[in-house]
Amino acid sequence: MCQLLGMNANTPTDVMFSFAGLAQRASEHRDGFGIAFFEDRGLRLFIDPESARTSPVAQMVRQYPIRSRNVIAHIRKATVGRVALENCHPFGRELWGRYWVAAHNGDLKGFHPPLHGSFRPVGDTDSETAFCWLMQELAKSHASVPTVAELTHTLRELLPVPAAHGSFNLLLSNGQALWAHASTSLHWLVRQHPFGAATLADEDLSVDFGALTSAHDRVAVVATEPLTADEAWTAMAPGELQVFVDGAPLVAPNTAAPR
Amino acid sequence: MCQLLGMNANTPTDVMFSFAGLAQRASEHRDGFGIAFFEDRGLRLFIDPESARTSPVAQMVRQYPIRSRNVIAHIRKATVGRVALENCHPFGRELWGRYWVAAHNGDLKGFHPPLHGSFRPVGDTDSETAFCWLMQELAKSHASVPTVAELTHTLRELLPVPAAHGSFNLLLSNGQALWAHASTSLHWLVRQHPFGAATLADEDLSVDFGALTSAHDRVAVVATEPLTADEAWTAMAPGELQVFVDGAPLVAPNTAAPR
Repeated sequence: MCQLLGMNANTPTDVMFSFAGLAQRASEHRDGFGIAFFEDRGLRLFIDPESARTSPVAQMVRQYPIRSRNVIAHIRKATVGRVALENCHPFGRELWGRYWVAAHNGDLKGFHPPLHGSFRPVGDTDSETAFCWLMQELAKSHASVPTVAELTHTLRELLPVPAAHGSFNLLLSNGQALWAHASTSLHWLVRQHPFGAATLADEDLSVDFGALTSAHDRVAVVATEPLTADEAWTAMAPGELQVFVDGAPLVAPNTAAPR
Repeated sequence: MCQLLGMNANTPTDVMFSFAGLAQRASEHRDGFGIAFFEDRGLRLFIDPESARTSPVAQMVRQYPIRSRNVIAHIRKATVGRVALENCHPFGRELWGRYWVAAHNGDLKGFHPPLHGSFRPVGDTDSETAFCWLMQELAKSHASVPTVAELTHTLRELLPVPAAHGSFNLLLSNGQALWAHASTSLHWLVRQHPFGAATLADEDLSVDFGALTSAHDRVAVVATEPLTADEAWTAMAPGELQVFVDGAPLVAPNTAAPR
């Protein structure tokens, strides 16, 4: 299985601390990594079939404080699909003049939806097929970029389709919001004023966010397993969809509060 | 104006020497850079609105010998479009389950083609608009990935349309071939056995390709201006289209030999 990391913030924020925690888990997840940073509409998408522990690309990411409001990262343990560059998550596509990226943790069995043409997988993972299908169905459902609430409503209808074929922990972003769909394991937290200190669960590394942030800053972090040992992470329920905007979960209209 | 660099090889080859030459020119072209490497179907696309001389991403690219058979690089001096991540070349899209990337040097005036939906620009450059239009028209012309010769035939019909609006020096690749369309300035050469030494035109840096290559290797390099001082570069004519496969120009059927 793979591990996911997502970040959504109300101000451009670097993810070096959380990415260090994720990369530490790459000893078991050595079949590639990827990280996508949105800067407004622009996208940086770094992928490497090397392990996040040894990849020069991961090393650069750990040292270059890229500030972003939406980040999705993934470390891969290959289950379906060869170890190859085209099978590294996150995958990216353009729709309605916006870049979209997604990373998936889980396995889908027998999900072979009809793909009519605008979005086709380049590699051979079930994950990229599911992402292409989602993009195709979103394109059918709206004529141009809808509101985050409308997109969430559409995703709430679409996501159970691939999820019925196995486990489908998914992070998705278009630079405006971060969507997180849980199947077996996703956890999130919000860091906001008053900021405290946090210690990585896997590494002897602490950070005092209070020294690095302003009172206005707010950051939501989503991960397969809690990344820190001394913060309160919320576990998502199977089938739950969360959407994070400006560093906090958004309760979509027409739906009950998620918890 | 911007500067372009393209590489097409018959065996995975690094472009560190040529990229060093290009980056040296970034003092005048400080508004971003980008470089795309195909590894079979997979794509690494690095972009940064920082100058290629100072960007940590460019530094990583200069030190990490990524081996590829098709590379497109670009250093940008902003003329149309703000200095922003989404305006950095190369641009990338997926069509027919293949990634496509393009970088453009030149300016187009009044080119506002109808874009029906599958490919829309994310940023605000004339270059990305022209690339989206090319992708849209290619998608209309073929049902799936055609041969390189067929693609070249289609591109020969399409490229004069944007080129009529200004200068359109373009590099395009889908990982199978490198297409180069000249409007005002593009030069190319082929390096093959027996390999000699070469010295960068802009920097006191030489390389002995003979020591780094095997007798079978063949590499075509395309650049806005010749990158080396002691090799024979061929200047392309206005309106000329070249396609490079396996490190050599391909003479398309139904066309005269390019020179």
